[in-house]
Amino acid sequence: MKLFETIQVELGERSYPILIGNNLLAGTGPRLAQMRPKCRCAIVSDDNVFDAHGKTLTDSLDTASIQHTEIIVPPGEKSKSMATLERVLSDLLDAHLERGDLVIALGGGVIGDLAGFAAAITRRGMEFVQIPTSLLAQVDSSVGGKTGINAPQGKNLIGAFHQPILVIADTDTLKTLPEREFAAGYAEVTKYGLINDPEFFSFLEKNHQDIFSLGPTLQEAVARSCRAKAAIVAADEHEKGMRALLNLGHTFGHALEGATEYDSGRLIHGEGVAIGMALAFQFSNRQNLCSIDDVERVKRHLAACGLPTNPEQIPGKPLTPDALFNFIAQDKKVSKGKLTFILTKGIGKAYIANEVPPAEVLAFLNEALKE
Amino acid sequence: MKLFETIQVELGERSYPILIGNNLLAGTGPRLAQMRPKCRCAIVSDDNVFDAHGKTLTDSLDTASIQHTEIIVPPGEKSKSMATLERVLSDLLDAHLERGDLVIALGGGVIGDLAGFAAAITRRGMEFVQIPTSLLAQVDSSVGGKTGINAPQGKNLIGAFHQPILVIADTDTLKTLPEREFAAGYAEVTKYGLINDPEFFSFLEKNHQDIFSLGPTLQEAVARSCRAKAAIVAADEHEKGMRALLNLGHTFGHALEGATEYDSGRLIHGEGVAIGMALAFQFSNRQNLCSIDDVERVKRHLAACGLPTNPEQIPGKPLTPDALFNFIAQDKKVSKGKLTFILTKGIGKAYIANEVPPAEVLAFLNEALKE
Repeated sequence: MKLFETIQVELGERSYPILIGNNLLAGTGPRLAQMRPKCRCAIVSDDNVFDAHGKTLTDSLDTASIQHTEIIVPPGEKSKSMATLERVLSDLLDAHLERGDLVIALGGGVIGDLAGFAAAITRRGMEFVQIPTSLLAQVDSSVGGKTGINAPQGKNLIGAFHQPILVIADTDTLKTLPEREFAAGYAEVTKYGLINDPEFFSFLEKNHQDIFSLGPTLQEAVARSCRAKAAIVAADEHEKGMRALLNLGHTFGHALEGATEYDSGRLIHGEGVAIGMALAFQFSNRQNLCSIDDVERVKRHLAACGLPTNPEQIPGKPLTPDALFNFIAQDKKVSKGKLTFILTKGIGKAYIANEVPPAEVLAFLNEALKE
Repeated sequence: MKLFETIQVELGERSYPILIGNNLLAGTGPRLAQMRPKCRCAIVSDDNVFDAHGKTLTDSLDTASIQHTEIIVPPGEKSKSMATLERVLSDLLDAHLERGDLVIALGGGVIGDLAGFAAAITRRGMEFVQIPTSLLAQVDSSVGGKTGINAPQGKNLIGAFHQPILVIADTDTLKTLPEREFAAGYAEVTKYGLINDPEFFSFLEKNHQDIFSLGPTLQEAVARSCRAKAAIVAADEHEKGMRALLNLGHTFGHALEGATEYDSGRLIHGEGVAIGMALAFQFSNRQNLCSIDDVERVKRHLAACGLPTNPEQIPGKPLTPDALFNFIAQDKKVSKGKLTFILTKGIGKAYIANEVPPAEVLAFLNEALKE
């Protein structure tokens, strides 16, 4: 195992490296001082993450004589709001950061999306650094430049594409991550195998226990996930084409999140994606696109990792096919009234289906939820 | 005179045309239907502009069978606020615009900045069309992709670079523009001559009366201004270098606006720029960079066009050198504690001076305001 690994996201003048390994957080200060001499930093984090990792980061900045200020918001999805954004923007402006200074996002997906968006729109774009501290953020949300907040009309409806200048994925920060959060992030890891890398899916089937116990294969799983995402983002930065493949499981997943009112007691994003991927495979099978063996293999692996694969596993009031269908019809990936889904011809054979008939989706949901 | 003129802003995949001429507004619908078949539109405008020009635009959209919705905000700089932005975002989301649909900014600089920014951050970037209806917007703010709102900490501190896909500058819309607004916009026209085109400045000296009476040279003045701005923007989209030349007169101008608390009864932006350009020439002369003849020629032309050239012409309580200096020191164009100014070696010979000693600026202001 290498000490740490560097993956370059190739986006022309917006290219940047992702560093993956352990004990990286403590080296942040000297690294930033080298990249942006005399920079000052604003750290955006949440109470929980800052309690766990803030001191390591600020000590490291102090070592490199980098001035810093901290903007700490409450943990949880509710911070992806206009009100919290306004507070972060105001604090960033009060800190009198100038061009050449940096915003550091220290936290999970919520912090990365919020801080990245605040950086995107402060003084028409400040440079920022992602330090993802959850598995989900390390393998997904910190890579690719999607930033934003939620609107009353839906999730992530207000935002921007804004690439970081550096991502530091320190796998040591996952030690403090609750098991449920780890499993949810792992759903996105699995996704990369299911999209276009059957060999990686086999690797995960073989090594998931080692990965869940933060063993030596964890770094490889994170690195391969980041490499997969980086390749897709490099080919289609603004999601005009193949980047939509990353939404495998997400159309059903978002509908499940919507129908459970984003109640994290019932469902968190990665769990929705796990069920969503299982449903995408089932729906593909129903359309005679993929074998039932592949459906079963996907569900077996997710279940072995403690992830749900069926809407009925969600605690609370059962979800109805109609409710899910309404959320799907409202989804922002709907284009000109036709439904777009990521369907699959088998493990590692996902593709973008642009003209899925809404009636077939509803019929499928009626079957799937009756099982 | 050509019927209308097209200037292409060359920005790779973000390139777009600016159409300049009369009677263009009524042709908007068919033009958009050709560019984006089956698009729907949200028009963002203010009460005054929509009263004057809304029907021409909506009739034209109806003719082309383009569905549209209207989002009307109060006129004036106060609409460049977080509160108004939130309302526009909410209305855009409620309109269920999809990818391929358009936001149309119909109005002056405030509307262009607000609507452009709302488009930039709705669904991580919607396409938008600028239809500038003030001279200032036609020659300056609608070209180049700067969008944003004001923060309590200062103007335009929250925003994004977001290029329109089309700019329609219909000179007929200037017929309803108050004379004071026209003159203020003309200050920016003059600026392009002063930056790097002495021949254009001579053209303006010769034709300003015709331009102010909306005569045949108006279209040429607007077109040459847009061409000048487009060339600079194409060379430096994100203001990392020479785009700063467009700030000629703006460092002093912003300080004057700040010191008069953005009270439009006392000073509007273009007037601040006029005085600011006069001060930039005087300061350059004091630094032995440009001749007193050039200073006098600039002031004479601005005065002939009814523009102020001296802070003492601003009505209300006299401004102090210290107050202006404080605003300059806070300006966002300050970099690492050194002052950046656009200075000049004469008419058409502006350049970026990165290390202007603050003490010399203060000494100059003390002299200039004692005159």
